[in-house]
Amino acid sequence: MAADIISSVEARASTVWTSVAEEVAAKLREDAPERDRGNAAPEREIELLRSSGLLTAFIPAELGGGDGDPSTADEVTRIITAADASIGHLIGYHYLHVWRSELFDQDQATRLRRETAANQWFWGGVANPLDAALELTPTEDGFLVNGRKTFATGASIADRLVVSGTRTDTGEKLTFTMDARANGVRYLGDWDNIGQRLTESGGVLFTDAPVAADDVLGVHPGKENEETPAALRLSLAQIAFQAVLSQLHVGIAEGALAQAAEYTRTMSRPWFLSGAEKATDDLYVLVGYGELVASTEAAGLMADHASAMLYAAAAEPELTPELRAAAALTISSAKVVSTRVVNEVTSKIFEFVGARATASKYGFDRFWRNARTITLHDPVSYKARELGAHLLAGELPPITGYS
Amino acid sequence: MAADIISSVEARASTVWTSVAEEVAAKLREDAPERDRGNAAPEREIELLRSSGLLTAFIPAELGGGDGDPSTADEVTRIITAADASIGHLIGYHYLHVWRSELFDQDQATRLRRETAANQWFWGGVANPLDAALELTPTEDGFLVNGRKTFATGASIADRLVVSGTRTDTGEKLTFTMDARANGVRYLGDWDNIGQRLTESGGVLFTDAPVAADDVLGVHPGKENEETPAALRLSLAQIAFQAVLSQLHVGIAEGALAQAAEYTRTMSRPWFLSGAEKATDDLYVLVGYGELVASTEAAGLMADHASAMLYAAAAEPELTPELRAAAALTISSAKVVSTRVVNEVTSKIFEFVGARATASKYGFDRFWRNARTITLHDPVSYKARELGAHLLAGELPPITGYS
Amino acid sequence: MAADIISSVEARASTVWTSVAEEVAAKLREDAPERDRGNAAPEREIELLRSSGLLTAFIPAELGGGDGDPSTADEVTRIITAADASIGHLIGYHYLHVWRSELFDQDQATRLRRETAANQWFWGGVANPLDAALELTPTEDGFLVNGRKTFATGASIADRLVVSGTRTDTGEKLTFTMDARANGVRYLGDWDNIGQRLTESGGVLFTDAPVAADDVLGVHPGKENEETPAALRLSLAQIAFQAVLSQLHVGIAEGALAQAAEYTRTMSRPWFLSGAEKATDDLYVLVGYGELVASTEAAGLMADHASAMLYAAAAEPELTPELRAAAALTISSAKVVSTRVVNEVTSKIFEFVGARATASKYGFDRFWRNARTITLHDPVSYKARELGAHLLAGELPPITGYS
Amino acid sequence: MAADIISSVEARASTVWTSVAEEVAAKLREDAPERDRGNAAPEREIELLRSSGLLTAFIPAELGGGDGDPSTADEVTRIITAADASIGHLIGYHYLHVWRSELFDQDQATRLRRETAANQWFWGGVANPLDAALELTPTEDGFLVNGRKTFATGASIADRLVVSGTRTDTGEKLTFTMDARANGVRYLGDWDNIGQRLTESGGVLFTDAPVAADDVLGVHPGKENEETPAALRLSLAQIAFQAVLSQLHVGIAEGALAQAAEYTRTMSRPWFLSGAEKATDDLYVLVGYGELVASTEAAGLMADHASAMLYAAAAEPELTPELRAAAALTISSAKVVSTRVVNEVTSKIFEFVGARATASKYGFDRFWRNARTITLHDPVSYKARELGAHLLAGELPPITGYS
Repeated sequence: MAADIISSVEARASTVWTSVAEEVAAKLREDAPERDRGNAAPEREIELLRSSGLLTAFIPAELGGGDGDPSTADEVTRIITAADASIGHLIGYHYLHVWRSELFDQDQATRLRRETAANQWFWGGVANPLDAALELTPTEDGFLVNGRKTFATGASIADRLVVSGTRTDTGEKLTFTMDARANGVRYLGDWDNIGQRLTESGGVLFTDAPVAADDVLGVHPGKENEETPAALRLSLAQIAFQAVLSQLHVGIAEGALAQAAEYTRTMSRPWFLSGAEKATDDLYVLVGYGELVASTEAAGLMADHASAMLYAAAAEPELTPELRAAAALTISSAKVVSTRVVNEVTSKIFEFVGARATASKYGFDRFWRNARTITLHDPVSYKARELGAHLLAGELPPITGYS
Repeated sequence: MAADIISSVEARASTVWTSVAEEVAAKLREDAPERDRGNAAPEREIELLRSSGLLTAFIPAELGGGDGDPSTADEVTRIITAADASIGHLIGYHYLHVWRSELFDQDQATRLRRETAANQWFWGGVANPLDAALELTPTEDGFLVNGRKTFATGASIADRLVVSGTRTDTGEKLTFTMDARANGVRYLGDWDNIGQRLTESGGVLFTDAPVAADDVLGVHPGKENEETPAALRLSLAQIAFQAVLSQLHVGIAEGALAQAAEYTRTMSRPWFLSGAEKATDDLYVLVGYGELVASTEAAGLMADHASAMLYAAAAEPELTPELRAAAALTISSAKVVSTRVVNEVTSKIFEFVGARATASKYGFDRFWRNARTITLHDPVSYKARELGAHLLAGELPPITGYS
Repeated sequence: MAADIISSVEARASTVWTSVAEEVAAKLREDAPERDRGNAAPEREIELLRSSGLLTAFIPAELGGGDGDPSTADEVTRIITAADASIGHLIGYHYLHVWRSELFDQDQATRLRRETAANQWFWGGVANPLDAALELTPTEDGFLVNGRKTFATGASIADRLVVSGTRTDTGEKLTFTMDARANGVRYLGDWDNIGQRLTESGGVLFTDAPVAADDVLGVHPGKENEETPAALRLSLAQIAFQAVLSQLHVGIAEGALAQAAEYTRTMSRPWFLSGAEKATDDLYVLVGYGELVASTEAAGLMADHASAMLYAAAAEPELTPELRAAAALTISSAKVVSTRVVNEVTSKIFEFVGARATASKYGFDRFWRNARTITLHDPVSYKARELGAHLLAGELPPITGYS
Repeated sequence: MAADIISSVEARASTVWTSVAEEVAAKLREDAPERDRGNAAPEREIELLRSSGLLTAFIPAELGGGDGDPSTADEVTRIITAADASIGHLIGYHYLHVWRSELFDQDQATRLRRETAANQWFWGGVANPLDAALELTPTEDGFLVNGRKTFATGASIADRLVVSGTRTDTGEKLTFTMDARANGVRYLGDWDNIGQRLTESGGVLFTDAPVAADDVLGVHPGKENEETPAALRLSLAQIAFQAVLSQLHVGIAEGALAQAAEYTRTMSRPWFLSGAEKATDDLYVLVGYGELVASTEAAGLMADHASAMLYAAAAEPELTPELRAAAALTISSAKVVSTRVVNEVTSKIFEFVGARATASKYGFDRFWRNARTITLHDPVSYKARELGAHLLAGELPPITGYS
């Protein structure tokens, strides 16, 4: 469906990936409410991303990718999210999976990106830290994976998976990649939630699913080594997820604001007591939107600053606990602020569109449903707590599956 | 389906209608999420209300009703609303339609209530003030009604309607009742909104629909007479709708809070960093719920005080603009406070139930969707404006279709 | 200074004490900013209360008092508080000290009230629960008191004190009254705080201060008996303080709102971009005030409901833990809501008066300073926690010095 | 008093001016509450700024200044503001006066900066747009100034003034500089406000005060030319004031947060029900601080982004209405967000320090009093309105004395 887009991908310079994203977003926006209700697996949507070139936009040209400036990846995520928060979530995590490969062995990362570009792979992940670890039983040339995971965003629709598990013999924790269609991998199809409905975030059951030794990205040092530069570097993945979440929050707020404003501009009638000729002349409406614009802009700056701190930490050869903590704390600030903003914006817009905009066909509730769902990824109060503990006692945030 | 309930209705004393409401609410709560998704006409739900005796609970015994203390009608509305905001909306408006008949001619009101009790009628209304007025063309023994109205809550599922329209010959505005199944009345079935989904609030098309002269409740004095006691009395209907809306807001908040608390108590897991054994031991969760409890309790008192002011005004033989305004302003306060609270409560609860509670099967989003929809009935900022204009300049609220 | 007032006190019927309060409030309002800055002991202010008859307004006529309806005492407190929060605090606590005497031995309470009326005593208290208990050493006909207490609101300006302490011999906790000018009582004069500046809430040092055995109001049952009806009854004093605090919060909000509105009405200029001729025509100002009016009204209802629950509990001959808890929880709701409202109102009003209203001579900051100070009496988050624990786990609030 | 500081100024590299600011801030912090109460003209404070070298820190070395990187000027302003918001206000406006000289004739700007460095001048301004314009009567070699202005921040304590007025003959509006001690300039000493008490923002009366023709910085094009690049450039001054205001808001929030945290860390006791050993272990306190940290950080990023947009516009040779508007809108977002944050932070901190921290000696209320005063500079709702009008209708903010 996007043949017109893909034909010109190779010619595009890095700076135009945001334009491509705008084109894709426009298509997604057209039927976002219907697709939200439909709750089907987002196969066409992934195909749209693939054919647009966005899946490999930020892989260097020498590895076969779109050679986009990596610092614009978050912007692409936000543009897509504004139109369709589920698909924004999927591409944001996809970029993250590719990006975090570089935190491990460089040769592996190079191979992963080269193959991703060659095959236009879409990546998903399986790693919910609150579930029991997957069990990895060594075989001659790799492992068999067993166990069950929930909240595996994108996995069932992915080509390749990044997975974590624990060796049954040594107890070591490994991160590895695998074919999402491998034998022994079963998707439970149990994702039917009020928001982020197209993210395919259901459960996965592994039954003797084979993994090749070559596909191990790396071994995680244990707790006792968690402050070595290498371990700190690997642990950036956790806060990278948090950074992406803030980008998604901001993207949803931006989308809600843009579409509500469009409705107010074109459809809303002024209240008969307002004395205004157009809804857009009602002072209350103007001030109300203005406050949301300001909040969203600040959250966006905060999210971008958080991402920048993350990338700076990843670029630091001698990563220290303090440097990692500086990034983690900024990311926590971004999460606190963006959580507050997206929940407020997606609810408050209703006051400015009016009663008729509650018709299901407009789907304005999806912004809030998406916001409420994604902002519960992990409790934001514990991010605020980190910030408080640092201010009051100089504590560095704990290194966990969520921080 | 409620034979066990109805059999004992007659024996019930006035004070127990709240218990009956609790029983009905318990039934409604069981499958509220499914029914919300189903979006079917609430025929079984109205039947449940009817068989429970609640439809006529507050009609005096001598007219054949349940003889309930009218001051508990709002409580019944809130109890039903907490379980199912659509059905609460329907019964709240039903009570209102019966109640407001007494603002007109007393004989008519007596007949209306007697017949309602005898036939166990369910009432709906057709009167959106923002639409063009229905046209009433005189006939030998009544009128023919023509025109189109939107937002006719409950009409398509009702037995009888309260309708307003304008005489084509004299220009007088009349309020009358009619058989909801009369010839020439067509329900457009166009209510598919994000919230209050079972309220059947779609459009109605009238084509030469006949009304008997006997069914005219009263004639509205024109603008020039709007400050006579009789006109002021009739104009209580508008603020009565506003008073019911505040009761619905509070009912939704109460329902959301109760069901979220039940989930937190039985299903939520404490966050792994909390040190708490149970989610109900997490200080943040306790304080968070506590703040919502306090807000909801205050909104409930405010709504009840508003209703009491309304009933006091209706009981006042020499109603003055100032007395009507006092009721109107209190009702506006209730609307401002309850709007804020219900939107906050229905969104904030998510922080205390956790990510797994976003599964569609729990339907926790319906509270917010209902809240957002009903709180847009008319813009709350104009209620706040009334309060401000009274404080600053002693202005009495204008008498309009919404105030 | 109030000779014209006192001359007619005896003639006043119970219903007019609120009118008297309005007159006193008008006088206090005249120079409230200057007196706030002056930070002098409120001797003239207490004299004004005394001469107006308000000190004994709610003591029955047969005991020599003003025979006011006790249910209007809170209204009087709020009227005075709106004009001068410190003086409102003093009279609110004064009423509380007299009221709580009835929780103890009835004969003592009768004597206390009779003497209060006869002498026009003003009462203060010494009982901060967070300080070490005062030591009571038995003597032939009473006790000697030793120790130090902080936050003794009104004590240094009082005629009589209600004091708590612990017997050195038996360890029993007693509540007793004493002459505020007794030997061995020294007021530290260390109250210089940002708000509630005229409440004389400084420290008190007791050095062998004598107390007569006759002046013991009662003995507190220990922890092991805290659920007996008598003990529960005594423990109402703690939540009674909390109930008064909510009344003070509401009074401050009401005062701030009234005085800001007066300024906006008479002094504020419309912003040049508003298109409004008067500041009171600016929609933003109207809506803003309206929202504060609604919030304040709801907080007032909540506070009055809380007080009513307290009085109902005190009137209950067979007080149970559940009945006490019901009152305590309602009082906690009132505290949570009124804390939020008074802090918001006293800060937000500035947006509607404009920059010139920040001149010190208007003293608009005193409302917020009073609000911030009094709302810290004890942490409101622990009141919210009580409400949460009750909702989630059915817990009754603990009986402490603050709940 | 700062001889030890000034002796080494010349040796300082540009990057260390923030360190100098920290040293100065530490001195100011020591007695900030006392000086706030004292309300004396900040002569010693200006001397401290002067002797530290900060007054001329951002003037190029070749003009005799401290050669600091101009992009750190806002940081210096914020550091000083956090310690003493009045002095931060004065230095922020001082930097602004010097900076905006470059918007006019370059030779004049060069002379102004060279003389400022040579004389270590402190600059104030006289230009409240809501007052009637000063009248400039031409003389042989300049003008005589007549009229009265209010809110002349820093003027009475300044060495030199930037003033605006209107020629009586041609009606042209001029901006010029003058000796703050010139004949005919009288300071009314009428600044006694609740916040920003040491800013000397009182009125100024001009009676035939002489100005040399050489001291005219520039002539403002009239309304009809307001969209020429030169006029747009001059009009950046108005939004530059707004940008500084946001920096001040953020500085106050940062100061409040830092000093409250210091108090909580060293002085606060945990609430007896918290189970915490230290106040800094109370989850509610940790989360509460964390939320304020996040808000403040976002506001800081927003303010810095706004300043950066301003500087970019000033550096644009072909400034267009759209480019100016982009800066203006970002500055409005910063104002909206920072206003909200500083008012919230300075009030909310009280919940985390506790009742004893309301003692006047700690002066914690000054943060809020400063915040409330400075955030009323002009109504923030009209900044929000600008943002709303741009979103909804693509409107560019009007060019006024405040935008």
